[in-house]
Amino acid sequence: MLKASLLSIGDEILIGQIVNTNSVFIAKELTNLGYSIHRISTIGDSRQEIIDELDSLFKVSDLIICTGGLGPTHDDITKDVICEYFDDVLVHHQQWEDKIRDQFKVRGLPLSDRNKGQALLPSKSKLLFNRIGTAPGMLIEKDNKFLISLPGVPNEAQCIIKESAMDFLKGLIDKTDSDCIIYKNILTNGIPESSLADKLDISEAILGKSSLAFLPSYQGVKLRIGAYGINKSKAEQELSRLYDYIFNRCSENIISEDEISLMEVLAELLINNKVSISTAESCTGGLLSSMLTSVPGSSKYMMGSIVSYSNDVKENLLKVKKETLINFGAVSKETAIEMAENCRKIFNTDYSISITGIAGPDGGTNQKPVGTVWIGLSTKTGTGAFLSNLGNNDRTMNRERAVTSALALLIREIKKPLL
Amino acid sequence: MLKASLLSIGDEILIGQIVNTNSVFIAKELTNLGYSIHRISTIGDSRQEIIDELDSLFKVSDLIICTGGLGPTHDDITKDVICEYFDDVLVHHQQWEDKIRDQFKVRGLPLSDRNKGQALLPSKSKLLFNRIGTAPGMLIEKDNKFLISLPGVPNEAQCIIKESAMDFLKGLIDKTDSDCIIYKNILTNGIPESSLADKLDISEAILGKSSLAFLPSYQGVKLRIGAYGINKSKAEQELSRLYDYIFNRCSENIISEDEISLMEVLAELLINNKVSISTAESCTGGLLSSMLTSVPGSSKYMMGSIVSYSNDVKENLLKVKKETLINFGAVSKETAIEMAENCRKIFNTDYSISITGIAGPDGGTNQKPVGTVWIGLSTKTGTGAFLSNLGNNDRTMNRERAVTSALALLIREIKKPLL
Repeated sequence: MLKASLLSIGDEILIGQIVNTNSVFIAKELTNLGYSIHRISTIGDSRQEIIDELDSLFKVSDLIICTGGLGPTHDDITKDVICEYFDDVLVHHQQWEDKIRDQFKVRGLPLSDRNKGQALLPSKSKLLFNRIGTAPGMLIEKDNKFLISLPGVPNEAQCIIKESAMDFLKGLIDKTDSDCIIYKNILTNGIPESSLADKLDISEAILGKSSLAFLPSYQGVKLRIGAYGINKSKAEQELSRLYDYIFNRCSENIISEDEISLMEVLAELLINNKVSISTAESCTGGLLSSMLTSVPGSSKYMMGSIVSYSNDVKENLLKVKKETLINFGAVSKETAIEMAENCRKIFNTDYSISITGIAGPDGGTNQKPVGTVWIGLSTKTGTGAFLSNLGNNDRTMNRERAVTSALALLIREIKKPLL
Repeated sequence: MLKASLLSIGDEILIGQIVNTNSVFIAKELTNLGYSIHRISTIGDSRQEIIDELDSLFKVSDLIICTGGLGPTHDDITKDVICEYFDDVLVHHQQWEDKIRDQFKVRGLPLSDRNKGQALLPSKSKLLFNRIGTAPGMLIEKDNKFLISLPGVPNEAQCIIKESAMDFLKGLIDKTDSDCIIYKNILTNGIPESSLADKLDISEAILGKSSLAFLPSYQGVKLRIGAYGINKSKAEQELSRLYDYIFNRCSENIISEDEISLMEVLAELLINNKVSISTAESCTGGLLSSMLTSVPGSSKYMMGSIVSYSNDVKENLLKVKKETLINFGAVSKETAIEMAENCRKIFNTDYSISITGIAGPDGGTNQKPVGTVWIGLSTKTGTGAFLSNLGNNDRTMNRERAVTSALALLIREIKKPLL
């Protein structure tokens, strides 16, 4: 298997000021090509640490992709360190100087000496064209191992990977003709991780050299199959075998595949079925509505929402009966049903969802602890409400889980009507 | 300086499936406490690699914070590896089993053997309480160096750091008495970066070994003071000197400090002033309302919201005049003003905010490109609307920026009424 490692150089990542988006992007691209990512490291702008880390990563990797430290200022030392590491010297690339001179001319700026320095590259390296910036990438080889060095600016790193490094990266995999792992994601819903694990009853005998990871999230437990094969076509056979194994044991819990979110699954269902929706929200305060409108094209199905945070609004705008609120309370099956049903009528939609609950951290009682949430669902054929005990004290989490439950409920209802 | 390193364990980061948000959060917290972050590493769920990386990181770090691999399934091996590394055995914590049994009971689920396993911890470790999940964190020491192991789920890792590990982390810095840099963030609003720089007139003579960074963001320009001292208390003195210097020159632009969000600032203002608010949203689809209700105690000020995603709803529920929609369009100053004013009347609140705009990626025109957003603000003394050109093509970013602008607008209005 071809092993790759990623190295990010820069203090702003170490102090937590910026998210390392380069690593995510590059790791995903390399994984899709069939590389096995061995390690992702972030270190500071220090000569010795870069040298040590290159040494350490090359021991376990065929390819290192390094980002950062190629700018024009004094703390950008990557090129000098590469020269030291590969026993090389910087040489001048006139074409690159002309290219950045033109870029500067367009912006009405003179080319400074600092920027001219960006046309200097290690003599043994191949320049990787950077269409959108002034620092080119570079590719350098030693003992049949490779280093690609890219600027740290995410747009530029991504641009060079996609436009200038891709042929090399693909070619290296192809000519190596080695074993590989290919991945597939499956999102399940309505079953806790431990019960799902019991249901699947995965053993080493079933997995062989392949893997199955359980990744809990608000959307449900995600399963990631990593199917191993001695070549790509064997890996695909293995993937299909493992997928069938899982599907046979928990098809009723599978809600989406291949990184498609619950919201995307629902949006597609709503659009394909040409149906409309509205929401009436209390404890989630508009989060469900905000989620429903987060997808481009949501105006095809989403009409609107009433956030009835106070009881007055539940009564005056959503027309929940005063007696219902007095007799059963705002967090009750009866209120959830009236909210959903009246909402559907007010917005004249095919479906309406209501959420009323206790998000926390305060407001819980013995009968209705924090995390008690009623989700109402109204369709043209009926209205019902479903209790969720989200069972924890975290407001943000309770709100997100309530919304996720509502999305999952609506997906199930559209696929297989209960009401 | 006390050196810390972060270790993330999990194939899902290596293959680029998820962003390593734990590293960002923990790096920021540790940096704020005065730790110097030496390295951030991500490796796979492999016994030997975890052992090797612990070895390598401990050579250069006083503290390692490790995330991931504490779940109930077969690929969660961190605890076993810790036992091996620290020459320890797992022991059972009855109190923890009782805690997770209760958590499961609330949700109406049985406690499986897999979950019971989460009550096993290395005997030499101290349990770090996890209020919101089933896997506790742990703290273990060897030769005066420390390892903290946390679950990989970001909310849980953050919860344990903030609630259960903070005393230890602070104490370690305090008792070590080495030189350090401590940071403070100040968020300014309503002044461009260059004017702020002129106003502050920072020089090397003022900074000494400390630093001041200007970080423009869509909430405003953030200032980050990095105060250096030969020990924590000297660094604190230095921080206070630099803070006073800045405060004296731009107090009127300071809108929040120490990572307190705009929303928290606004919630405090609304509660202290005993005023109420409602919102009328189009392109943000409930995101503003959801933000306003994200803070505990928001029922003190938030009455409700109408999400008028379709024009029908703008007309029928928000009573925007048909002529206004026809003559000026849904995305216009006139519509924003009617939405805000009518919303305030419908909900009978002191303030009301409306947002109508083009979030993208589609729907832009030459006159009204994607990113055009009108924000209306209505108070008991007047109603106005303000144009934002968010100027980019990213739907999520445009929606978030529109909400941020609305929050900042309301904060300014409450502090110093314009309307």
